[in-house]
Amino acid sequence: MMNVVTNNKWIGQRTIRPDGVDKVTGRAAFAADTTMPGMIWGKVLRSPHPHARIKSIDTSKAEALPGVQAVVTAKDIVDFPLDKSVMLGIQDMRWMCRNVMAREKALFPGHPIAAVAATSEAIAAKACELIEVDYEVLPWSIEIDDALKPDAPILHDFVKFEGKPSNIAGRLEVKKGDIAKGFEEAEIVVERSFTTRPVHQGYIEPHACLISVAADNKTTIWSSSQGQFMVRAMTSYLTGINQSDIRAIPAEIGGGFGGKTIVYLEPLATMLAKKSGRPVKMVMTREEVMRATGPTSGSKSTVKIGAKKDGTIVAAHGIFYLQAGAFPGSPIRGAVGCSFAPYDIPHVLSEGFDVLSNRSKVAAYRAPGAPIGAYAVECVLDELAEALKMDPLALRLKNAAKEGTKAAHGPVYPRIGYVETLEAARDSDHYKAPLGKFQGRGVASGYWFNAGGESSAQVNITEDGNVVVTTGHPDIGGSRAGIANICAELLGIDYRRISVLIGDTATIGFSNLTGGSRVLFASSIVVTQSTEKVIHTLRERAAKIWDIDPEAVKWENGAAHPVSPNAGQFEPLTLAELAEKAPSMGGPIGAGVQLNTVGAEGGFGTHIADVEVDVELGIVRVIRYTAIQDVGRAVHPSYVEGQLQGGVSQGIGWALNEEYIYNKQGKVDNPGFLDYRMPVCSDLPMIDTIMVEVPNPKHPQGVKGVGEVPLIPVMSAISNAVHQALGKRFYSLPMSPPKVLEVIEG
Amino acid sequence: MMNVVTNNKWIGQRTIRPDGVDKVTGRAAFAADTTMPGMIWGKVLRSPHPHARIKSIDTSKAEALPGVQAVVTAKDIVDFPLDKSVMLGIQDMRWMCRNVMAREKALFPGHPIAAVAATSEAIAAKACELIEVDYEVLPWSIEIDDALKPDAPILHDFVKFEGKPSNIAGRLEVKKGDIAKGFEEAEIVVERSFTTRPVHQGYIEPHACLISVAADNKTTIWSSSQGQFMVRAMTSYLTGINQSDIRAIPAEIGGGFGGKTIVYLEPLATMLAKKSGRPVKMVMTREEVMRATGPTSGSKSTVKIGAKKDGTIVAAHGIFYLQAGAFPGSPIRGAVGCSFAPYDIPHVLSEGFDVLSNRSKVAAYRAPGAPIGAYAVECVLDELAEALKMDPLALRLKNAAKEGTKAAHGPVYPRIGYVETLEAARDSDHYKAPLGKFQGRGVASGYWFNAGGESSAQVNITEDGNVVVTTGHPDIGGSRAGIANICAELLGIDYRRISVLIGDTATIGFSNLTGGSRVLFASSIVVTQSTEKVIHTLRERAAKIWDIDPEAVKWENGAAHPVSPNAGQFEPLTLAELAEKAPSMGGPIGAGVQLNTVGAEGGFGTHIADVEVDVELGIVRVIRYTAIQDVGRAVHPSYVEGQLQGGVSQGIGWALNEEYIYNKQGKVDNPGFLDYRMPVCSDLPMIDTIMVEVPNPKHPQGVKGVGEVPLIPVMSAISNAVHQALGKRFYSLPMSPPKVLEVIEG
Repeated sequence: MMNVVTNNKWIGQRTIRPDGVDKVTGRAAFAADTTMPGMIWGKVLRSPHPHARIKSIDTSKAEALPGVQAVVTAKDIVDFPLDKSVMLGIQDMRWMCRNVMAREKALFPGHPIAAVAATSEAIAAKACELIEVDYEVLPWSIEIDDALKPDAPILHDFVKFEGKPSNIAGRLEVKKGDIAKGFEEAEIVVERSFTTRPVHQGYIEPHACLISVAADNKTTIWSSSQGQFMVRAMTSYLTGINQSDIRAIPAEIGGGFGGKTIVYLEPLATMLAKKSGRPVKMVMTREEVMRATGPTSGSKSTVKIGAKKDGTIVAAHGIFYLQAGAFPGSPIRGAVGCSFAPYDIPHVLSEGFDVLSNRSKVAAYRAPGAPIGAYAVECVLDELAEALKMDPLALRLKNAAKEGTKAAHGPVYPRIGYVETLEAARDSDHYKAPLGKFQGRGVASGYWFNAGGESSAQVNITEDGNVVVTTGHPDIGGSRAGIANICAELLGIDYRRISVLIGDTATIGFSNLTGGSRVLFASSIVVTQSTEKVIHTLRERAAKIWDIDPEAVKWENGAAHPVSPNAGQFEPLTLAELAEKAPSMGGPIGAGVQLNTVGAEGGFGTHIADVEVDVELGIVRVIRYTAIQDVGRAVHPSYVEGQLQGGVSQGIGWALNEEYIYNKQGKVDNPGFLDYRMPVCSDLPMIDTIMVEVPNPKHPQGVKGVGEVPLIPVMSAISNAVHQALGKRFYSLPMSPPKVLEVIEG
Repeated sequence: MMNVVTNNKWIGQRTIRPDGVDKVTGRAAFAADTTMPGMIWGKVLRSPHPHARIKSIDTSKAEALPGVQAVVTAKDIVDFPLDKSVMLGIQDMRWMCRNVMAREKALFPGHPIAAVAATSEAIAAKACELIEVDYEVLPWSIEIDDALKPDAPILHDFVKFEGKPSNIAGRLEVKKGDIAKGFEEAEIVVERSFTTRPVHQGYIEPHACLISVAADNKTTIWSSSQGQFMVRAMTSYLTGINQSDIRAIPAEIGGGFGGKTIVYLEPLATMLAKKSGRPVKMVMTREEVMRATGPTSGSKSTVKIGAKKDGTIVAAHGIFYLQAGAFPGSPIRGAVGCSFAPYDIPHVLSEGFDVLSNRSKVAAYRAPGAPIGAYAVECVLDELAEALKMDPLALRLKNAAKEGTKAAHGPVYPRIGYVETLEAARDSDHYKAPLGKFQGRGVASGYWFNAGGESSAQVNITEDGNVVVTTGHPDIGGSRAGIANICAELLGIDYRRISVLIGDTATIGFSNLTGGSRVLFASSIVVTQSTEKVIHTLRERAAKIWDIDPEAVKWENGAAHPVSPNAGQFEPLTLAELAEKAPSMGGPIGAGVQLNTVGAEGGFGTHIADVEVDVELGIVRVIRYTAIQDVGRAVHPSYVEGQLQGGVSQGIGWALNEEYIYNKQGKVDNPGFLDYRMPVCSDLPMIDTIMVEVPNPKHPQGVKGVGEVPLIPVMSAISNAVHQALGKRFYSLPMSPPKVLEVIEG
């Protein structure tokens, strides 16, 4: 960590996370840990076909099976007509209603066709087998090239591109200057094409929920998600139950990484509970998770960059095709917007295409789209540096975006720390360390937008002078610890006197989901404002006791003091003393704030990867890794480092091994952790981190989102390292042993 | 209900209660309905003796029993030294810590000595039997007269009265004028003495809790109580765990009537959970409820009233001895303060004495103390009216307190409706109806202070334009329905669009308990203020859209409108439309208020009781009953009527049958509903109500507490009716068949 001189006592401390004991002792309740009296089990019947018209569904035999309490199909889910978009955030209810339950057609193997609730999981599974579905099997496509062929089977007739039914569901571009003119000015141009495979978020906890619905529609949802308010809203849309009748309680979450920003089971369990009158529990198997929940997109990209001989980049053009899966909505915005964002380039065109095919609908995955774009751009930059005989960090430093740079996707950057990440990389021991045989070193950078958005907080003082802080976002990356540090700092009290909790949808104000690297940024703004209101009340009460003006009272070290001896000679009044006097001075002390936060400026990182290639087995081993990032302000350094290390670990999997293997029937052959190879500890080196702290000028504590940037540069940094190790370049992921051997051998 | 002309659409409507469906379908979760993974069971070992020194406790055999996970005794509970009072509201922690677990001495049969947690309830019970306690049995007293004898065994050496160790734990008086002078002016004086027996609150749901404590003390409490914040605070005091580390979740409550305003099990279960590392569930049996939880006091009273021959009351003197049970704290304040409060009497002295004896510590019971005082006063007034040959209502009308009357206990009344209750009684069909043989009619009045105090509310608008309101008080008497009506009225929307919920201690601001007839009064103030803040935000946002001044926008019928055509011509913007636009206009819409409410003015009621006495069996049957009350404003008439009817039903039990039967060993012989005779439906007539609505001038909707007054006049009204039926007066309760036969026969 770079030295940032502050007088902070708690901000920047590695305090024990408030939920730590619960999590290491098993006391923390995840969605599947919950039970209710009278609870029954739900299971989903899923399509065996990649593409099939559903001619009829006969549930009568299933309904007749003893123990079966309810069966639901698409007719129980609210239908959103195809001709009108109904958006909830970035999700279109037309697709969501069809994704949770196939309506006209089954569009991928694993697509839900019906759901059953029964007195046991086994009976529910048996009942699913008894449901008779008459399918008209249709031709299908899985890969981008197949989906874009002129005679490709069209998934949705109503999706049109250039006036014709198409599997291209959308196009997005960002543009700056004139690339034709830019490339004319270029003295050297590198253009390359790349492919990546869909990879799954790989959270440990499968989707699960437990839902109870009363006869008057009052609904209680226990589920793990990245946002209890998202669960409430989507379930409301898809079931027709008023949001005010739904109480969505956030269980602890065993990972999401974007994959839990939409619902799969909740609307089904809600309708099963409503029909049966019993609480319904549903828990996906790992196979269901792999077959039917969102991975991120596979992609094909072409990136062309032109530069002067001195290394000045003058033009850049990117074309990114991203798989959407069975419904529109791939993260083209991340690929298009972030790829060139670390650089100050006069002429940029970045285009993205959203491509449908008969795969499960993609979901957000850590910096959605950005790693795909960065993989192509940062590999091309490596070749450009090589061609220019420049150090790759020097090339990036020469073209680095700075305060005042106007990015192609819109913003003019405030004071940012990208240059500092490049300098820290350049000056690091790691970058200077020697390399051995078949070893190589690569660098790459990455940018993520970061998000603000709606957050709510409530800060209440207990009768014994301690503090309870509630926010509305699931804590995935340690936000409770960060909030405790900030609140302790503001109140001037020991952080152990502060409990930080996650409220359900009934009790805390609307809060957008945990995603977009937004949570600590946004929640600390509302917590700060709420705490400042509390401090204002505390000062007012002290002023009343002392009979002086509230302006003559300051709050310091957990107590009210006169601002100066002139204001009067009084003993400080502590938080505990003022809490004790609360009843007689107007009542309890507490304040809440609900806000749509702004000012979440983008984040930048630069990574250094060292690899060693086992040229006999084709195994690429990451032997040293350093992730450097402008983290704004590391409110809790351990969790910032954890984000950096976690992102890199996921990137290593994406770079080297993870992919879905499809068989000739259009089905995934490796839907489990034994065959879908995520990295385990023995695959990973210790991942070093360097936190550059350039405080976000638009945040009270300087906080900047840090969760997503760390995934973005990994695949290109490793690819560039493999090139140095082998002298050969790879243009597709994963760089798995068979492919590595292929490249080595020819 | 009297006609009150208003333009209200929802206030005054008999809407369906928000928790109604849950309660009639069994979905509502009470404390004993909850389970947790790994949960074990706790049981309490209780003293068999009324009074005994605890010389030693050997828990080793219990601890060695397979399945036993933890044992706690007084040494695990925080000790509050006897020489220093530590108050939490009206409770002294010195007594509370010794009441939940006997420390130096066992003070009543049923007093907890130790508690065990084991893997089953049976093992826990078996383990209790294995605990060896060495008692030094001491002399004891149960009744007031025994406890006040010069040689009575003293419960607490440190309790002194007039300088000597005593079983009188306190004396309280209220005074106005000079009674010596008053009685000199009197032309007629009636003085009588009365006794009443302790009666239990008789809630259906026994005390129960489920508690989990993590290694870092983070504690979750599920329990039924009249206040989750009371549970949090008392458990914190008695276990030493910070309040901020305790989350007390209010389960639904199956009745409390004051009896659930203190804790019994929670501190024990918390320490068992802490020691065992497992969640601990404890559920009392009915016998434990009857032996060890608070009834209200038994009493002996003497009341003397002097009047002029025209019926003008000139002096009143009351002396009330109330049983405290084993620890100080009988409700003498209610007896002393309320008894003469309905009357404008120039000279008053009202004295109360708090008397210890070896019974379970009394707890609050519906208008604590007031029914005891009113029983004596209202019976004496009946004799006085008889002596004066005045109609008993006319006597009360002549002396009735009015706006401006200064009560002996302090307040100067604002506009009150006591006279209106007397007039409504006088003018009622009931009062004029003929009576048959062995039938009689009695009237009586009652007064209760009513309470305000701390309440918190949060009003949030959902994304679909509906409303969630959260408050911090358990809903016992229909407060959710009342709040929904008020919020619907203020927002101008259908009440079904509003969900009203009870928050736990983590998420809603501090809220005092449900008691003192305070909840709808106080919570509707904070809900009103929160809703007004929300409406202010809605007006501001409409103003922004229309680009006019917020002052030029009014809120009506669920939508923003320009105040006049001059302000501009705009289509109204509904709540749903403004909710949809919230994200782009500053964020979510919601507001909360935390306040110590004031202005809860006292309540008055007048009752008419008709009885028929079965002179052969000695059974008194209530054949007609009308309860008339100044209810301020009946926000939800059904629940106001329910309060009136419920209070009368309890009073009928107290008047005619309920009492603890003690055996010669100082133990209760009838600790169950079979032998402790509470009235059942067949014992009760339809209880008619007349709601007089004189709005409370100090409340935004005119609300006045209504829950406690209805119990106060019942015993005296019935006693006065029995006198008319038989021509003989009773001076003690209950008027059970053996006693009635005794009076009839001699």
